[in-house]
Amino acid sequence: MRVALDVGGTKMAAGVVEADGTVPTFETVSTPQSGTWEGCADLLRTVAAGREVDAVGIACAGPVDTVAGVVSPINIAEWSDGFGLAESVSSIFPDARISLAMDGAAAALAEYRHGAGRGTPNLLSLVVSTGIGGGVVLDGRIASGRTGNSGHIGHMVVPGSDERCSCGGAGCLETVASGPSTVRWARSRGWTGGGDGRDLAEAARRGDVVALAALHRAGTALGIAVASAAALLDVDLAVVGGGFAQSGPALWAPMLESATRHARLSFISNLRIVPAELGSRGTLTGAGLLTL
Amino acid sequence: MRVALDVGGTKMAAGVVEADGTVPTFETVSTPQSGTWEGCADLLRTVAAGREVDAVGIACAGPVDTVAGVVSPINIAEWSDGFGLAESVSSIFPDARISLAMDGAAAALAEYRHGAGRGTPNLLSLVVSTGIGGGVVLDGRIASGRTGNSGHIGHMVVPGSDERCSCGGAGCLETVASGPSTVRWARSRGWTGGGDGRDLAEAARRGDVVALAALHRAGTALGIAVASAAALLDVDLAVVGGGFAQSGPALWAPMLESATRHARLSFISNLRIVPAELGSRGTLTGAGLLTL
Repeated sequence: MRVALDVGGTKMAAGVVEADGTVPTFETVSTPQSGTWEGCADLLRTVAAGREVDAVGIACAGPVDTVAGVVSPINIAEWSDGFGLAESVSSIFPDARISLAMDGAAAALAEYRHGAGRGTPNLLSLVVSTGIGGGVVLDGRIASGRTGNSGHIGHMVVPGSDERCSCGGAGCLETVASGPSTVRWARSRGWTGGGDGRDLAEAARRGDVVALAALHRAGTALGIAVASAAALLDVDLAVVGGGFAQSGPALWAPMLESATRHARLSFISNLRIVPAELGSRGTLTGAGLLTL
Repeated sequence: MRVALDVGGTKMAAGVVEADGTVPTFETVSTPQSGTWEGCADLLRTVAAGREVDAVGIACAGPVDTVAGVVSPINIAEWSDGFGLAESVSSIFPDARISLAMDGAAAALAEYRHGAGRGTPNLLSLVVSTGIGGGVVLDGRIASGRTGNSGHIGHMVVPGSDERCSCGGAGCLETVASGPSTVRWARSRGWTGGGDGRDLAEAARRGDVVALAALHRAGTALGIAVASAAALLDVDLAVVGGGFAQSGPALWAPMLESATRHARLSFISNLRIVPAELGSRGTLTGAGLLTL
């Protein structure tokens, strides 16, 4: 039996992997702020239900170190200085082959195999939400880079911001185009609406001028980052998911427009940007695919 | 016998490949503006000198299509709409295995195997000259992307420019930090010195304030692009060569400073930027390595 595990800052999910890598049914629990590993271990044992486990595919919030099997997600306090997740899972299932990937990379693989990237073995995926993550698939496989962290598109520097970023840098895409960053910019321009990116998108749908400008700014930055990444990677597809990516044409139109403006080299002149198809299940599906 | 071929906009080089992939001696000719292929064929025949050729490694100016074996370099007029280089070489050496890569990718591979990137199987290389090219090596191999064009770092968009680029886009790194772009910016600020990037670097060495500002601007943009690419790719080394990269500390200090400012994620916090070691021989060496 093969098991897939998705560890995020707010929730963890695990389930049994089918022959095609998908995980049709799964268990979900909130990520405990203390006793994180114990919660994770309980979840895995519940899914395994005493059966023999041959392989476990793990997708975890980054940064990760897929070579060392260690994760240090900035949004999981107990693990942020490094936790030996692969070894720990191995201690529960000693006979299982353990595979570890960053969540964004797993989601990119899943979109290639079962989602919006079917038939497109070179692609970039983005998750635009409270942060901006992503993953890179080249030649049908995760391009992991040195330690599995390839895909951090949210920390590419874009024009139009010199704001400090949570990563310690400045001017990252995430400081312009994540949900909270876009809301913050709108507030600085006088928007007084509700709390989060969803409210801002709703205001834009109603024609609020500041909300529209904020989403235009975010979309433009996303399009620029995608065009830059496509030039560097030679991919002609970007799959965009995440909660804030559901903001509609007010975000998507400027994103497509700026990508078209900047992606002019012959090999990316047909660059497509499309919505992700797998939603929040993408990461767990990617974890499942790792076990094949 | 294995042959390496390097086709650029101004010159072509070819030589016999040693067992370690290097090409110690080689012939060089100017790239003919008409009869480009005939000139290339003559060069190959001269190098082969009637001996049996088992493999030919080709590095060519981009864009390329390594899947189709077709090249369309913007700086070779006769080939810019697409030329079947792999097939043409095959017609001269029918029994040879033909491998094709973009010049920047070949140079990146060479720096990994025999140059400044020895022991660092995940790296980015840049050639900063009249244009800005590059290549990506992941896991010890060229990351070619869909059609072999991965590495076009000169066409990543950076802050500080909205100038039209030769690629048709705007605000690309190349519009800020290539030799000609930097000279152009210096002239717009009143620099009246000699003709090219070398003169500008010389003026900076003498303390010319505008020249120093121009190189600072270029270096800052290079550092930002390298930091962005490193975050996206998870590489911790960038190898920088090309004529304009010989501009000294006036270019390198701001490049290193801006890369350090922006590359803060844990996995790239030790990002190094070092000079290329192989110089103009890098590309031909990369072509040689393709034959192994």
